[in-house]
Amino acid sequence: MDQAARQHPRLTQFSLRHARGKDILASMTPAGRTVAGPPADVGMALEDVDTPALIIELEAFEHNLARMADDVRRSGLSLRPHGKAHKCAEIARLQVAHGAVGVCSQKGSEAQAFVNAGIANVLVTNEIVAPHKLDRLAALARQAVVGLCVDDASVVPLLSTAAGRAGITLDVLVEIDVGAARCGQLPGEPAVRLAELVARAPHLRLKGLQAYQGRAQHVRSFDDRRAAIARATELVRDTVEKFRARGLPCEVVAGGGTGTYTLEATSGVYTELQPGSYIFMDAAYAQNLDESGKRATGYRHSLFVYSQVMSVPGRGLAIVDAGLKSFSFDEGMPWVADRPEVLYTRPSDEHGLLDDTKASSRLRLGEKLKLIPGHCDPTVNLYDWVVGVRNGRVECLWPIIARGATT
Amino acid sequence: MDQAARQHPRLTQFSLRHARGKDILASMTPAGRTVAGPPADVGMALEDVDTPALIIELEAFEHNLARMADDVRRSGLSLRPHGKAHKCAEIARLQVAHGAVGVCSQKGSEAQAFVNAGIANVLVTNEIVAPHKLDRLAALARQAVVGLCVDDASVVPLLSTAAGRAGITLDVLVEIDVGAARCGQLPGEPAVRLAELVARAPHLRLKGLQAYQGRAQHVRSFDDRRAAIARATELVRDTVEKFRARGLPCEVVAGGGTGTYTLEATSGVYTELQPGSYIFMDAAYAQNLDESGKRATGYRHSLFVYSQVMSVPGRGLAIVDAGLKSFSFDEGMPWVADRPEVLYTRPSDEHGLLDDTKASSRLRLGEKLKLIPGHCDPTVNLYDWVVGVRNGRVECLWPIIARGATT
Repeated sequence: MDQAARQHPRLTQFSLRHARGKDILASMTPAGRTVAGPPADVGMALEDVDTPALIIELEAFEHNLARMADDVRRSGLSLRPHGKAHKCAEIARLQVAHGAVGVCSQKGSEAQAFVNAGIANVLVTNEIVAPHKLDRLAALARQAVVGLCVDDASVVPLLSTAAGRAGITLDVLVEIDVGAARCGQLPGEPAVRLAELVARAPHLRLKGLQAYQGRAQHVRSFDDRRAAIARATELVRDTVEKFRARGLPCEVVAGGGTGTYTLEATSGVYTELQPGSYIFMDAAYAQNLDESGKRATGYRHSLFVYSQVMSVPGRGLAIVDAGLKSFSFDEGMPWVADRPEVLYTRPSDEHGLLDDTKASSRLRLGEKLKLIPGHCDPTVNLYDWVVGVRNGRVECLWPIIARGATT
Repeated sequence: MDQAARQHPRLTQFSLRHARGKDILASMTPAGRTVAGPPADVGMALEDVDTPALIIELEAFEHNLARMADDVRRSGLSLRPHGKAHKCAEIARLQVAHGAVGVCSQKGSEAQAFVNAGIANVLVTNEIVAPHKLDRLAALARQAVVGLCVDDASVVPLLSTAAGRAGITLDVLVEIDVGAARCGQLPGEPAVRLAELVARAPHLRLKGLQAYQGRAQHVRSFDDRRAAIARATELVRDTVEKFRARGLPCEVVAGGGTGTYTLEATSGVYTELQPGSYIFMDAAYAQNLDESGKRATGYRHSLFVYSQVMSVPGRGLAIVDAGLKSFSFDEGMPWVADRPEVLYTRPSDEHGLLDDTKASSRLRLGEKLKLIPGHCDPTVNLYDWVVGVRNGRVECLWPIIARGATT
């Protein structure tokens, strides 16, 4: 990792004091919305961080950052990490400093947050259909390289009109469904017909294909993941050949996530990889198995929710201060870092019930624990700040600038 | 409903423009955190509201507001609605205008947001154990009537010390576990011993008992809910009698939620009711059955996520722009309002997959839908704004001031 990338931006300009024992918790925006101050100060010991707090262990984070950059560099493909996982300008900048061509976003407002923060190249890996949202995206393309996906012929004129109004040419990928059963035109001939419309539209630039196999990412068996990406690759290859036969440009074939990117990397047809969760590694991805049937260990858990035991009512039960408003539970319960024998068994809105009956020692009232989220992306979206920690000390405070940017 | 309460505060002082077709999406705080502007303007038609957006149908909301106030007034008990459901100062003010004695909060930072917004009486229905958090709460008690719960003897001196440092006397409820199997001291003698410690502490005022049966709230059968609250009531009554026998004050016995409050109201032992979700009615509570085995209809769905169909890839599938970052899924899938034959079958981070194969007409690209959240509290916590709508027009924009206030 080069020296520039190691210089994590510290939050030196922050003028409000944090919540610990002081009066000022939050700033009021002109609109009256209370924005919580960060739960820590730079230099503070980890155990003094207010809870619940989203924390990044910077050593594991840097390992992940460098490993993905190295992996993709060796493959000769482009890396465009997904910003929907972190929604954080500092992380996006570090990814670009490590060679990423830019970042992906899933929504126009999220793309806007990244562009406003200085990220020069953002691809919206998603469809946008509302005219006012298309105008917003087209306006962004005056400041940065901006692209998006299309899967429906009726949207092409709206898109071209918005680009024309903004006086720019917008990059467009035709999204095809390669097994994710979500958005996307059918591969092959239907995708070609849509691409021809894009190529003919006056203010659009046809760049190629978006072909993300989202459902393969969390398939546990390596052989099953490989089979899913082999099927996707066949569909992509057939579509690319049809593009070429019709003289349609197909400079970019984009896809791949943390669970499968090594497979797209060797497919011979993908050109750009879009992993997001690798930077954090959540409990869901940690259950994926590698080729030998063991849990894959290439990436380390770097993201945690730091929480405190605030009740020990007995019966083998300890209760932490982080529940449904501090984690997303769609991929199951959080794991207790360093204490695998303690189980997070049940959340309520502001509580987490831990079972410590199999632990050699009981959890103590006031004890603080690092919990590994089941699913990183929607968990990060709950927090205004992430606290960067190294060797038990707070090193940096990063705002989650695109938190709640879902429009 | 009186006239004062009908005057919803409109957001007139908001100086930023909203996202629709304009450059300014957000304001930057001194800390660099981007705060999204509201997704609507006052006076706008509902169909022009940007998506996804959290909306309140004000007629249903006012029905719920008035009905709970009337119900509790008739019972002769006090009403203290739970602010954790809405985290919104305007809603808290309307609840107080309808006779509530104040609001409940679940966290100190949430209580702080309400007190800063002018709510004069806030009870934290939860344990707080970190000394700096106790200092923050004690400081609040200089501005407002503030109370909290305790379930462990070791916290009593910390609490009293914080109150003494702030120069105030803090109201304390002893929390007992009446079947929720979460926080709480055992009822009866153990609760009495803890209460004696509180009563003897120099800067604390023993107010009584917190006895919330959280697990009974979503029990579908009325008879089962009644049985659960009957058991809870027995435990409370026994504990109250022991308090009296020992000369301990027990002015307040608090509990009850949207699913059971009518039962606590007639128990003869509870004095203060704490329902939260009634103001919104989510899909989870809507499945509770009344005494005749039918779905209870006393409260109306007033809270929705407004969303847009942004892909119709065929196969009976339509995809909306609201997924795991726009709803909490812990209580199941959202329901499609006014279109019960359309099913929300599966979320991903930013998408919702709808099955319209049983609908008489297919969903159209760009169509907007009102979706009823499975669980209101953690869904509200995802949004910076809620849009108040009446007769298809935007009437008010309310900031969710305590969004993310989990510390």
